[in-house]
Amino acid sequence: MKTVHVGLLGFGTVGAGVARILTESANLLAARTGVALNLKYVADIDLETDRGVPLADGVLIPDAKRVVEDPEVDIILEMIGGEGIAKELMLQAIGNGKAVVTANKALLAKHGAEIFQAADARGVDLAFEASVGGCMPVIKSLRESLVGNRINGMSGILNGTCNYILSRITDEGLSFKAALAQAQEAGFAEADPTLDVEGFDTAHKLAIVTALAYGTTVDFDDIFIEGISSITPLDIDFARQFGYRIKLLAISKNHGDRVEARVHPTMLPEDNLLSTISGSLNAFSISGDAVGDVMLYGHGAGMMPTASAVVGDIVDIARNMQACQPRRVPPLSYQPERIGRLPVVPMEEISTHYYFRFMAKDQPGVLSKISGILGDNRISIQSVNQKGRKSNGAVPVVMMTHEAREADVRQAMRAIEALDVVDGTPMLIRIEETNNAD
Amino acid sequence: MKTVHVGLLGFGTVGAGVARILTESANLLAARTGVALNLKYVADIDLETDRGVPLADGVLIPDAKRVVEDPEVDIILEMIGGEGIAKELMLQAIGNGKAVVTANKALLAKHGAEIFQAADARGVDLAFEASVGGCMPVIKSLRESLVGNRINGMSGILNGTCNYILSRITDEGLSFKAALAQAQEAGFAEADPTLDVEGFDTAHKLAIVTALAYGTTVDFDDIFIEGISSITPLDIDFARQFGYRIKLLAISKNHGDRVEARVHPTMLPEDNLLSTISGSLNAFSISGDAVGDVMLYGHGAGMMPTASAVVGDIVDIARNMQACQPRRVPPLSYQPERIGRLPVVPMEEISTHYYFRFMAKDQPGVLSKISGILGDNRISIQSVNQKGRKSNGAVPVVMMTHEAREADVRQAMRAIEALDVVDGTPMLIRIEETNNAD
Repeated sequence: MKTVHVGLLGFGTVGAGVARILTESANLLAARTGVALNLKYVADIDLETDRGVPLADGVLIPDAKRVVEDPEVDIILEMIGGEGIAKELMLQAIGNGKAVVTANKALLAKHGAEIFQAADARGVDLAFEASVGGCMPVIKSLRESLVGNRINGMSGILNGTCNYILSRITDEGLSFKAALAQAQEAGFAEADPTLDVEGFDTAHKLAIVTALAYGTTVDFDDIFIEGISSITPLDIDFARQFGYRIKLLAISKNHGDRVEARVHPTMLPEDNLLSTISGSLNAFSISGDAVGDVMLYGHGAGMMPTASAVVGDIVDIARNMQACQPRRVPPLSYQPERIGRLPVVPMEEISTHYYFRFMAKDQPGVLSKISGILGDNRISIQSVNQKGRKSNGAVPVVMMTHEAREADVRQAMRAIEALDVVDGTPMLIRIEETNNAD
Repeated sequence: MKTVHVGLLGFGTVGAGVARILTESANLLAARTGVALNLKYVADIDLETDRGVPLADGVLIPDAKRVVEDPEVDIILEMIGGEGIAKELMLQAIGNGKAVVTANKALLAKHGAEIFQAADARGVDLAFEASVGGCMPVIKSLRESLVGNRINGMSGILNGTCNYILSRITDEGLSFKAALAQAQEAGFAEADPTLDVEGFDTAHKLAIVTALAYGTTVDFDDIFIEGISSITPLDIDFARQFGYRIKLLAISKNHGDRVEARVHPTMLPEDNLLSTISGSLNAFSISGDAVGDVMLYGHGAGMMPTASAVVGDIVDIARNMQACQPRRVPPLSYQPERIGRLPVVPMEEISTHYYFRFMAKDQPGVLSKISGILGDNRISIQSVNQKGRKSNGAVPVVMMTHEAREADVRQAMRAIEALDVVDGTPMLIRIEETNNAD
């Protein structure tokens, strides 16, 4: 039986999960693959903490460089995270002709061009299933199962922290702050939750799948990103009255010559399957010209689900090594020379339906002023909900629009915000009825 | 660019879909794979009907034998269906060293042992993603993405006809007969619907995934099969009152030394994601020790979704051929010599929760008689719902049980059916709270 030697960099949560599967499930893996996977090194500066995974003497070492330099090591698992030393070690490993498996979406989304080019040039495998949607086979589905499809669009819930927080606001009427505190207590949110709640993590994943789906390079800065921190129980309640749920979605659409790629809180019809995904779970829907819609659902993060995806990648690469066929499937789904550059549609040019909430003085003529401005900006109202009268203070005026252009909407919002009879900044939530491109 | 020659047997619905993708998406496929796929032959006895897929002169021929004998043909697509000529041609193709792609679940479920053995002996690829769940990557997930997992259990909706009919009964209160007639009119059911509504089609698929998931041979006759033809709107209504939906499920559980494999109408909690799958859609949930639950969802049948899965298989095999690495992934997920034989637990030994409905005479003491018999058979009642009094005739008595053994339940049902105060055959529906094994 061929032995493939694996070097793990980073003995944190996911790294420990991978080490556990490779050691505890060695027999199962051999029965399926016919290959022996040998975890030769685990490199981590912390040699003391017990991760609950017994390793043979000499496996755990402090020196990551030694792992990427060892000629016997075939596959490097980059489980360090971040964009500094992780990138450096990854490029060194690639330079030494080693295949690399990573879950580092931030690194791939921001420095993917350099890393993929290095892997192309050296002819080594670079696998990253765990970078998007944890255990869900998003990458493999795009690269392999759906290979016969033109991908028309994708949408999904790709951040468990946000989905947990939105579920808490929805189910318990909590404020964003209180729901975040709960999420932190339950271990679903970091002490500094910015990366998650402001949508960046979701956008990292969206950048990766957009590239894979359409065979295009994606500049991360072209992705529109809006997080969930301004979502209130009031908006969630109105959404429900209109038959909608609010989710932080990654949305991508293929217009042939351009693509959409955006992350924002989104109102979805309550009978859309994505609406039913609650708690920290993830779901991802892919729309192809042959398959229609396919959805994947599961744990998008966590020690063992993520480790499962990493092991799937290791096995794929080990199987390639058996036949000396690296890059059997091109890392970015298209042959490198066939990857183009489809521009991302600027957000101002997006057309969609909108939900608006204005806090308006409860006096005659307010609605007429607001709807006048909307009409002047070519925004047509589908329904209005003006809450009961209050003796003083502002009352919410809620509207759903027909399809409108983002540029028009922004202009209208500025004009409405400037009205004397409107308090504060208007709330705007985009509505998604389908994930198909036109 | 390497050219892989494909021979299609059967120019029916799915065959035409495959031919369409191979011709219309040739450029896309080449951009992704770096391989040219050439549809060299399409064999069908009907040379006249226009399938809307233009083929070059000489491609459409009446003689399937010529296709499997042509030394230039690398991959045979068996899209004929049935167990006669399809099997014969498949074995001939394998004998001639050709890889085979099929969607023929009945053939694989019943004659799989012979076919897989032939492919093993000749060392050729045999791919069948389209046989289970249409476009959902069920097979690929089990064989590749989840390779690092011990699979604990699986459950799913794998027959669109049944799900369509159950949805109609649920949504419109139709009888089974009326719902079936609607399904036939809408093109979701065959003129002879037996294979679908009596659960056989679902069981064919379950046989295949059970083998793949646990590395075991499965004797199709060991699978317990109960269809949906006796489900009434009354039961669906009671299920709803208890917070459940009724679905035809394929259920499989891994007990280590034995496996469960059964198909029957199942009551699922309404917040289980499988409960929300309506119409002709399919969904399949896989539970692994590392991933937890992963669910796939999409079109389980239909021309293009099925064709998409076939094309995914063709590309997989073509990639193997590029590297002269056939059987890169073993067809049955485990190395042939590692496939064992885990017995299927006899249905009588299954333990689960049950729903019973008895049509009882509305007179004192009935409930005590029924519950006495249940108690004598070690069946403990969780809740009872006895419908309002009627002046004459029978009233439904509905019960939900704690976990009970099937053998005990069957014995109790016989005794209760024999009671004077009970009309007709008691209704029994099994309840599933989770898809995990113990």
